Amino acid sequence: MSLKDSLYKSLHKITRGNATMELEELCCYSYDATGKSFLPDAVVFPCSASEVSAILELASSEQIAVIPRGSGSGMTGGSLAVQGGIVMAMSRMNRIIEIDCDNLIARVEPGVVTGDFQKAVEQKGLFYPPDPASSAFCTLGGNLGECAGGPKAVKYGVTRDYVLGLEAVIPSGKIIHTGVRTAKGVAGYDLTRLIVGSEGTLAVVTQATLRLLPLPEAVKTMAVLFPTIDQAAQTVSAIIKASLVPRCVEFLDKASIECVRESFGFHIPADINAILIIEVDGSESLVAQDAEKIKKFCIDKGALQVIPAADAKEAAELWAARKALSASLFKIAPNKINEDIVVPINRIPEMVNRIQGIQKRTGLNIVSFGHAGDGNIHCNIMYHKQNPQESMLAESAMDELFAHTLDLGGTITGEHGVGITKMKYLPNEVGESEMAIMRGIKKVFDPDNILNPGKIFVC
Amino acid sequence: MSLKDSLYKSLHKITRGNATMELEELCCYSYDATGKSFLPDAVVFPCSASEVSAILELASSEQIAVIPRGSGSGMTGGSLAVQGGIVMAMSRMNRIIEIDCDNLIARVEPGVVTGDFQKAVEQKGLFYPPDPASSAFCTLGGNLGECAGGPKAVKYGVTRDYVLGLEAVIPSGKIIHTGVRTAKGVAGYDLTRLIVGSEGTLAVVTQATLRLLPLPEAVKTMAVLFPTIDQAAQTVSAIIKASLVPRCVEFLDKASIECVRESFGFHIPADINAILIIEVDGSESLVAQDAEKIKKFCIDKGALQVIPAADAKEAAELWAARKALSASLFKIAPNKINEDIVVPINRIPEMVNRIQGIQKRTGLNIVSFGHAGDGNIHCNIMYHKQNPQESMLAESAMDELFAHTLDLGGTITGEHGVGITKMKYLPNEVGESEMAIMRGIKKVFDPDNILNPGKIFVC
Repeated sequence: MSLKDSLYKSLHKITRGNATMELEELCCYSYDATGKSFLPDAVVFPCSASEVSAILELASSEQIAVIPRGSGSGMTGGSLAVQGGIVMAMSRMNRIIEIDCDNLIARVEPGVVTGDFQKAVEQKGLFYPPDPASSAFCTLGGNLGECAGGPKAVKYGVTRDYVLGLEAVIPSGKIIHTGVRTAKGVAGYDLTRLIVGSEGTLAVVTQATLRLLPLPEAVKTMAVLFPTIDQAAQTVSAIIKASLVPRCVEFLDKASIECVRESFGFHIPADINAILIIEVDGSESLVAQDAEKIKKFCIDKGALQVIPAADAKEAAELWAARKALSASLFKIAPNKINEDIVVPINRIPEMVNRIQGIQKRTGLNIVSFGHAGDGNIHCNIMYHKQNPQESMLAESAMDELFAHTLDLGGTITGEHGVGITKMKYLPNEVGESEMAIMRGIKKVFDPDNILNPGKIFVC
Repeated sequence: MSLKDSLYKSLHKITRGNATMELEELCCYSYDATGKSFLPDAVVFPCSASEVSAILELASSEQIAVIPRGSGSGMTGGSLAVQGGIVMAMSRMNRIIEIDCDNLIARVEPGVVTGDFQKAVEQKGLFYPPDPASSAFCTLGGNLGECAGGPKAVKYGVTRDYVLGLEAVIPSGKIIHTGVRTAKGVAGYDLTRLIVGSEGTLAVVTQATLRLLPLPEAVKTMAVLFPTIDQAAQTVSAIIKASLVPRCVEFLDKASIECVRESFGFHIPADINAILIIEVDGSESLVAQDAEKIKKFCIDKGALQVIPAADAKEAAELWAARKALSASLFKIAPNKINEDIVVPINRIPEMVNRIQGIQKRTGLNIVSFGHAGDGNIHCNIMYHKQNPQESMLAESAMDELFAHTLDLGGTITGEHGVGITKMKYLPNEVGESEMAIMRGIKKVFDPDNILNPGKIFVC
C-alpha cells in the first residue's frame, strides 16, 4: 500500500465512500486507448465541484498526483497515472444540467457521454457538432481536455469553438469560473480556451457552458469510390478550393476499406483503393443542390461510383463502418501506433505519397483514414510489439511521419493531444521560448505539479 | 525630455529613423476613441518582427513601457500610454502577405486595415466575417488585441474563431510562433487564443494566420420597423429561439434612429421606436426562403414595416447608416460613455426595460443599439462632461448598467475589452482566484510589466 492510510481515509470521507484502493478496481482505471497501463494508488469518484475541491486541496497538501479521467478513450495517454497517484474518475458527475433553447446553450457536467449529449440536444431541435469517433462512450470532460474534433470540424470547428465558459477546480482546491454564458465576452484573459485542450494539466473541469446550433433541416451522406488514393486526395483538396463546404469529408485508404469492407451496405469492387465519405447539411433544397455539385465534381476527378445513402438509416450504417475502423485495425496486426497528424489541405496528396514511401521503406502496414476535409489524417502504424525488429521500424516510421508532417507545414496532433506518446516530438513543433511560456503557465495553475503530471512536457 | 537621449538614439537606429519625439507627433498618438489622452515619450514605427524584437529587448533592459497601437479606434483605452513610454505604432507593418485559396487561409501583418483585408479576400471569392463598425480604419492587429466582433458574430463568431496561429514578440524580445497553419491543432497549450483578446498586454503580434470562408453566394438585408422597443427586443429573442440564424440582427432604439434618420434611404414614420437590421446569407434559394420566413416572423411580432434592400447598394446604405451611428451620437451631447454589455438573448427585453429605468432615474439620454442577435448591446450614456452633476449621474448610470448586466447573467464587455475604462468593474465579473491566475499569466509573459502596463488589471 503506497498511499498513506490516513490519506485514503480522508479521500473516502470526502467522497462519502466513493473511493477505492482495490487492485481489481485500480486495474480498470490503469489503461486507456493507447494500450499502455499504469496502476494508480487510488481511484476517487467525486460527485460535485466541492468534492473535487476537497480532494485537490488534500492532494496539494500531501503533494500527491491527481489524474482526472473521463472514460479512458484517449489516444495519447492523457488519463494515465504515469507516476501513480489518485485517479479522479468523473463518471458520477454526468448530469446535463440545462439545455436552454432560448439562448442556444447547455450546461453540462464533465462525465456526460458525448453521444448522449448529442442525442439530448437533437431531441430539442438543437445540434452539438463536435463528434469524436468514440462518441458512444467518450465524455465531454475528456473532449474538453483534448479539444476533440471529429469529422464535422470541416464546417463546424472543434470543441474549443463550442465552449463559452467553465467551472473548474485548480490544484489548490479553489473553484474558478471562466468565460461567459453569452455569445460574446472578452473580460480579461481567455482562461476558458486555455483550459480547453490543456489535457487536464491546469484544472479539473466540473461544469461547462456549451454553445449549441439549430439542428440542420437536412443531411445528405454519400460514399465516393476512387480507383487510386491519389485521386481521392486530389478531390478533397479540389472540393475545398471550390468553396464547397461539406460538413464532413472522411477518407479511407485501401487497408481501411479491407478492415471494414463487410460493414458497408454495398459492394466495393476490387479495383477501389480509396473511399471518401462526404456529408452535406443545410436546408432541403441546398443539400440536394450541394450533393449534386459534389457528385459531379468527384466524377470529374475520377471517382468510379458515388453511392448516396438513401435515408438516415443507411447514412448511420456508413458512419458505423467509419467509426468501427479504429478498433477493427487489429485484424491487421496486434499493435498500432495511432497518429492524428494534420497538413494543409492542398498538401494531402503529397502527404499520402510520403506515407506510402514510409510504408515501402519499413515494410509495415500503415493504414490511413480520417478527417481529410480539414487535413487531419489518422495514420495507424500496425506492427507486432513482440517483434523487436518491427517495434524499431514502427518507432522510426513515426519519427519519419512527424518529420514529413512538419515539413509540409502541418502539426503533429489535430485532436488527440500530446499526452505521453507525443511528448518526445512536441519540441520539434513548438520552440523553446513557447515551451518556456507553457511551463510558466502550468506553474501559475499548478505550482507543485500535482495535476496530471508527466504529460505534454516535462515541468 | 523624459526619455534618455541615448535610448531615443537607439530607437532611431533600430527603426532606421522611424521614431519620433516631436510633440506634434506625440499628440497624434496620445488619444483613442475614448476621448482620453496621454502623451507618450516617443513613438516608433517598426517594419518587421526583428525591429519589434529589438525595441522590446531595449525597453525591457531600460524598464520602459511599450504600448502597441493599431489605428487608435479602441473604445476602452487599450492603446493609450497611460504611464508614458514608447507607443509602438504598427502602421508600417501593413502587408497582406498571402491569401491562400487552396487552404482557405491568409497571412497578414497587424497594421492591415480590416476593411482592406475584407475587400482583398472578397476579390478572391473568400470571406473574413469579423466586422467591427470601425472596419474602414481599424486594423487587424487591434482586432486581435481586443477580439473584435461586429454584427456578423451571430452566425460566424468573433476574431478568435478566425485566428489559427500567430507570430508575436514577447517583452523579452523573443519572437514566438503559436498555433498552426491548419484547420485543427492541439499541440500544447493554446497560446494563440490566450494572446487574442489580451489587449496587447502579453505580446506584440507581428503576423497572424487567419482562417477564411467561402464567400456566401447571396446576401439579403432588410430593415424592420417596430412601434415599440419591447417588440423589437422580443422579436430578436424569438428569431433565435426559432432556430433561424441570420448573419446579423442589429438593433437601433428611438434615439439612435433620430441620430441617423437622414442617412436611411427611406421614410421612417414618427411612431417607429425601434429598427432591426436583419441580414441573411447563403445560397440564392436559401436566402430568399429565410428572408420570407423572417419577414413573416417580424410581422407576427408586431413590426409595422419590413423594408428589404433592393440591391447591394441599398444594403450598403443601410450599413453605412448603422456604422455612422457611434460618431453621430454627439448630436445629442458632447460626451458619451460607450459600453458594450452582453446579456443572454432572452434577457434582452428585460435589459432594455432596465436601461429605460436608468434613463428615467438619471434623466440622461442613454442611446442603445448594437448586435442584438448575440445579446451584445452598445449602450451610450450621453452627457456634458463640463457639468459636474451630469458627470456624476453618468458615472452612476454606468455602475447601474453593469450591475444589471451581471445580474442578468451577462458580461461587461462583448468586444471592446477592459482597457482602462472597465478596470474598476472587472472584479465585479471576474473573481479573485481568476484575477490571480491572469496576473500570474501576465508575469510569465511580461515579468517586468513593461508591455501595455496599467491595462485590464493592476499587476
